[in-house]
Parts: sequence; C-alpha cells; structure tokens
Amino acid sequence: MIYADYNGSAPLLPVVREYLKKRIDTEIYANPNAIHSIGQKVFQGIEKCREVIAEVVECYPDQLYFNSGSSEGVSHILFSVLEYAPKNKNIVITSPIEHAVIPKALKFYQERRGFKLEMVDIDDNGVVLMNSLEKLFQKHGETIALVTIMAVNNETGVIQPYEQIAKLCQQYRVEFFCDTTQLIGKGDFSFRSSGVDYAVCSGHKVGALTGTGFVMAKEPTKLKSHVFGSTQEKGLRGGTQHYIGVETLAIALSDFQTHKSKLKNLSEARLKFEAKMKKTFPEVVVVGDKVPRLAGTSLMSYPGIHGQAVQIELESHDIFVTTSAACSDNQPETSAVLKAMAINDDVGRGVIRISLSYSHGDKDYLQLEDALTSIYTKLKKIKSF
Amino acid sequence: MIYADYNGSAPLLPVVREYLKKRIDTEIYANPNAIHSIGQKVFQGIEKCREVIAEVVECYPDQLYFNSGSSEGVSHILFSVLEYAPKNKNIVITSPIEHAVIPKALKFYQERRGFKLEMVDIDDNGVVLMNSLEKLFQKHGETIALVTIMAVNNETGVIQPYEQIAKLCQQYRVEFFCDTTQLIGKGDFSFRSSGVDYAVCSGHKVGALTGTGFVMAKEPTKLKSHVFGSTQEKGLRGGTQHYIGVETLAIALSDFQTHKSKLKNLSEARLKFEAKMKKTFPEVVVVGDKVPRLAGTSLMSYPGIHGQAVQIELESHDIFVTTSAACSDNQPETSAVLKAMAINDDVGRGVIRISLSYSHGDKDYLQLEDALTSIYTKLKKIKSF
Repeated sequence: MIYADYNGSAPLLPVVREYLKKRIDTEIYANPNAIHSIGQKVFQGIEKCREVIAEVVECYPDQLYFNSGSSEGVSHILFSVLEYAPKNKNIVITSPIEHAVIPKALKFYQERRGFKLEMVDIDDNGVVLMNSLEKLFQKHGETIALVTIMAVNNETGVIQPYEQIAKLCQQYRVEFFCDTTQLIGKGDFSFRSSGVDYAVCSGHKVGALTGTGFVMAKEPTKLKSHVFGSTQEKGLRGGTQHYIGVETLAIALSDFQTHKSKLKNLSEARLKFEAKMKKTFPEVVVVGDKVPRLAGTSLMSYPGIHGQAVQIELESHDIFVTTSAACSDNQPETSAVLKAMAINDDVGRGVIRISLSYSHGDKDYLQLEDALTSIYTKLKKIKSF
Repeated sequence: MIYADYNGSAPLLPVVREYLKKRIDTEIYANPNAIHSIGQKVFQGIEKCREVIAEVVECYPDQLYFNSGSSEGVSHILFSVLEYAPKNKNIVITSPIEHAVIPKALKFYQERRGFKLEMVDIDDNGVVLMNSLEKLFQKHGETIALVTIMAVNNETGVIQPYEQIAKLCQQYRVEFFCDTTQLIGKGDFSFRSSGVDYAVCSGHKVGALTGTGFVMAKEPTKLKSHVFGSTQEKGLRGGTQHYIGVETLAIALSDFQTHKSKLKNLSEARLKFEAKMKKTFPEVVVVGDKVPRLAGTSLMSYPGIHGQAVQIELESHDIFVTTSAACSDNQPETSAVLKAMAINDDVGRGVIRISLSYSHGDKDYLQLEDALTSIYTKLKKIKSF
C-alpha cells in the first residue's frame, strides 16, 4: 500500500506508535493543572514538549501555545488581531489560494466586523506576486489590519515567498500571519528567521495524534483568549491540555528534525517521477512545476481524464491519493485554487494530488509510475470529458 | 494507588487502553474528509461513534458536534448565542458557582459586547435557588439572551435543579445552556428529557483521550462556526476531526452506560465513608452533604487543617486528590465557589476534593478512611491555622 495523502493527513509515525503503546500502560494520566505529583508530572511533560518543539520550529517556548490544530489556530489568530484591531485598520490582505478556513473566517470579519478584503495577485504558477502586494500596501497604508498568506499551498505544494512577504510587512509595519500548516514537518521552517508574526501547525499533518497543534506568536501578549478557560497556556487557550497529543507532537517533530535530510532524496525521486510521466504522456501537466514546491507533492493532471477516475483506479493498485484538498475532495469541479491560477477545466478536473513524506523515496515513485502509466494508458482510450 | 481526581481528569479507561493498543497497529489513518476508501472508513467510524454517543446521552445524532472539549464547547455556545443575539436581548443570567471558563467567557461578552450579567442566588448547600431565578425572569423578561447554569458543580459535586431550570426557561422562552461537563459519564443525563437547549462534554473527564469532546444543541441550526473551517461537522466546527479521540469517546461512554448501575454502590460507599469520618472527627465538614451530589465526589474539610497539607500527606499514602477544581488547585485561598456558599475560611481552606468513578467502591473508601484518619489525627495536633 502507498498512502499518498500526507497533505490531507499523515498516519501516525512509527515512532509515535511505539511511544503510544508504552504510554498507554503508564499511570501518568491527570489534569496537568492539578498540583498533585501526577498532575505536575503531566504538566512538566507538556513544558518539556514545548521546548523540544520550539527548538524544531525555532521559536522561543513562550511564543508557542498548544491547541487542537490549525483551524483553531487560524480562528484564534484572526480573532486576536481583528477583534482587537484599532478602528482605523479595516483592511485585510489575503490571497486567492488560501486553505478554505481562511476565506471562511474572513467572511465572518467582513460581514460582522466591517473589514474589507483585498486579494493579492498570483502568477500562473500559483505564486503570490510581490509587486501586487506592494501596491496594496501603498494603496491602503495605515489602514491594513493584517496580511494573511500561506507558506505553502496545500493542493499544489507551491512554496510562497513568505520570507519576502514578512520583510515587506515589517517595512510597512503590518502584522503578517502565515499559514504554515503544510510547511512544518514537510520542509524547512524557522519561525525566528522567517520574520512572520503568527504561524500555525496541525499535529495530524506531521504524524502526531489527531486533535493537536499549536500557534506561534512573535509577541505572545498580542494573542487573546478565543477558547476561554482558566490559566492553561498562560490564559491564552483554555481547556485541559491534550497532553497525550502534545507528547506525540514533540515526538513527531523530533522525528522530522532527525530525518529531514531525506527530503532531498524525496524531491529528486519526485522530479524524476514527474519527468518520466511527462515523457511517456506529453499531455500530462504537473501544476506549479516551474517553481519551488514541497519535496513530496505532485499535483498531476492528464487533461480530459477525470481525476476521480484516476483516484479510483489507483485504489485498485492500493495507492491512495486525493483529487484536491482532502477537505473538498468530493467536489468534481476545478478547485478555487486552480481557478485562481487560471487553469482550465480540462486540466483542473483531471488533477490528482500525490503527497508523500520523508519516509518515502524512489521505490514508491516507481510504483506510482507503474500504476499511473497503466491507468492513463487505459483511461485515455475512454476519456471522460 | 488511588487516583481520586476524576472530577479533574480521568485516566484512560481500561477498555480505551485495550482499544487504542489495537487501533495503533491498524492503517486506518486518513483525513476523514477525503473520498478515498481509508478516508471514508475513518469518516464512517466518526458517524458510528456519533450514533453510539447520541444513544448514551439521549440526543439525536445531528444534535451532537465533536470538538476539543468543554472549554471550546462553552466558548462555541456562548459565541453562537451571544454574538448573534437580537439587539434587545442583553442580559445573561448565570450563577456564582460556575466553572472558571464561564465567568471568563462572559467577561468578554460583558466588556466587548455590552451584555449585562445577573447572578442567580444559591443556598448554603450550593444549590441554585429557583425563586431567585424566577425573579430575574420577571425583572428582565424579553431582554434575557441566555441562562447559563451548570448541571453539577465540579468542586462540591452538588447537583443543580437543571431540569427545573430548563422548564422555567421554556416557560419564559429563554435559551438555557447547561454545563454538563461534570455530569456526563458520572451520573444520569438525558439531553432529550432534560429540556436544556445546549450541553457539553469533555472526553478526558470520562476516561477517553484528551482533546476530545462535543456540544449538543436542541436546534443545531442555531450553532454558528466558532472554529472556522471547511465542511467538517456540517460546517459548524472546522478542523480535521480528532477521530481517534472520537472513537475513544464512544468506547468510554459505552463503558459508562454498561456499568452505570455501579453508581449506586459507589454512592453508598461514599456516604458510609463520609459518615464514618464525621463520627471519628465531629469537626469534619462535608460540603453540600444535605443535598444530592455526584455518586463519587466528597469535598471534605477538617477546619483549621490546611487542605494542601492533607493533600501532601495523602500522596505519601499513594492517594491523589485536589484541594479544589484542578484548574485552580494551586490557590491556597477559599475558592470562589465556596465563598459564594458563604463557607468560612476555616472550612474553605481545609477542603480536599475526593472524586472517584464507577470503577471504585467500598475497598477504595476504606483505604481513604484509614489514610485520612491517620492524617487528621496527626495534623490536628499541629493545626496550620
């Protein structure tokens, strides 16, 4: 079996599984806010995990707050910035290729708080255009409350110029929230050197338990309570901590840190695979292949062959992919992200997303190549549109 | 060892541990929103769990939405009702004995949305007074946006007249959110017959994984997105579902359902224990002992002997308790809840909270009695205040 939907969700990492099996048999279960010794042991475990993770993502431990994952992280950060924005700041700059959670949340602030959205332009490769962003800065100046642009697109794997964006934001003194959900655990990221003000992570994307994640804030005092509670996470995120999840998150990100040198091989194997597919089928399109992408993501289309047909055929080869973001995998149209990239329906409805992790390499891509070659050969005879 | 902090957090139930050990070795890990067969298997698992849980708490499956736990549930429900309340409704009725998350959240709506809080009176046993509530209804009439009163107090275990409150709310056509965090999995609760409009549950309180829980809503369309996202949980709670947590929640609540007849024995064993302690030490006070309480909760005080001293001594007997709510366990003063009950500092600073589950019985209480008897005998000679 090849599970090739790591951008959707990663299976528990082998080291996480081993850890959990031992963890389950302990008696270290307690409310980490209780002062009895079991509670304190749990609490100290969380703090140790915070340090371990902070080292991997290169932030200070007190810049990192645990939560249930990136959707909460996004909601929390937008709430912290927009609910408390000065009255004169009513512009939010975003991009047309953000994950669904961002436009959904921004719609709330648009409809109920009077914020105005400005979309930065992207090029045909799906990369945010810096000159478009600069124009928006010049146009709106001091009235900009926030820039929210992702680090890596979840569908295409295309890496955005988030460090340049951060620099520009600093220059114009505008806060920058960078949705790093698809970057952390899949590519190099340093919160400190990136210059971004806010970032997020989801545990289930990096092989940790579901329902865990964190936000990072350059100036944590700017975060406000969104999930209310007691003193947990310094009062910034209420609720008894998902400590078992937090522990697996530290293990998963440490595993990534140890093995991230493998990303180079993964990237080479992927490029070889893509090149061979395009050689065999000159019609094949790999979205975003002219620009830097995540090591293990290919958004591939055989124009005229429906992505879902390919997905189903791949399943019979025991290979699991999606046709777009997992969250909107059941929509047979061209995705909003691809539409924003001016990709036509012939290509757009044909895409499959193959997303692998640093545990994969040549062997997996050879198997994918074999399967896809036989599938495209078969299906091109009976093109679906 | 006796872990006696079930009101703070429950250890993973034995059935949950067994389940997880097997679960970890499967390959059923995927984004439940992906349409490939692994994703769909995960998704169907979640829906099955929703049905199982809905049967235990007696609601319709589509009235139940998974989240990260009760603090999120409280934040979500208050947001849904108060953010979207008609302009003329600006009164929130609550009680002085709510869990910290409620006043914290209400403070936000008070300060930033102009809501006014009205406190219902409680009696010396810590029970909400129905006539006080009715007076508030008569005073504020149509301007009441919400009543938020808990089902069971987390410190004392005192059960509130939440079904009567629900009836009165219906009579006055006011929505009623009942914080059921300490009731579900510890006592009888039927969402349907309770008459409450909103309720919540935290998985870690019932022996499931941390970071999981749910809200219930009589009319789910009244819930609004608080954690934004895609189509998860019918668009009402974004974020890739904590499906492993959800699975353990279904197992834990099923286990409760199977074994809840044991609560009677637990309650009898507790009453015997409390009676014997009071017989040996006539000074001993059990808070709320004149009214119905949770089967396994005793908030006990030897006036003049500091609760923390007793807590520490109990640890040397391998017994783990708290001195109040776990969330504020490190505050040596009389808790806000006890102050609201007009309990003096002599008693208030002396309390320890012993909270057990339906897996406990006579044997545990005998051990507690032995330990506490020797501790009180020792410490009363050197009273701390």
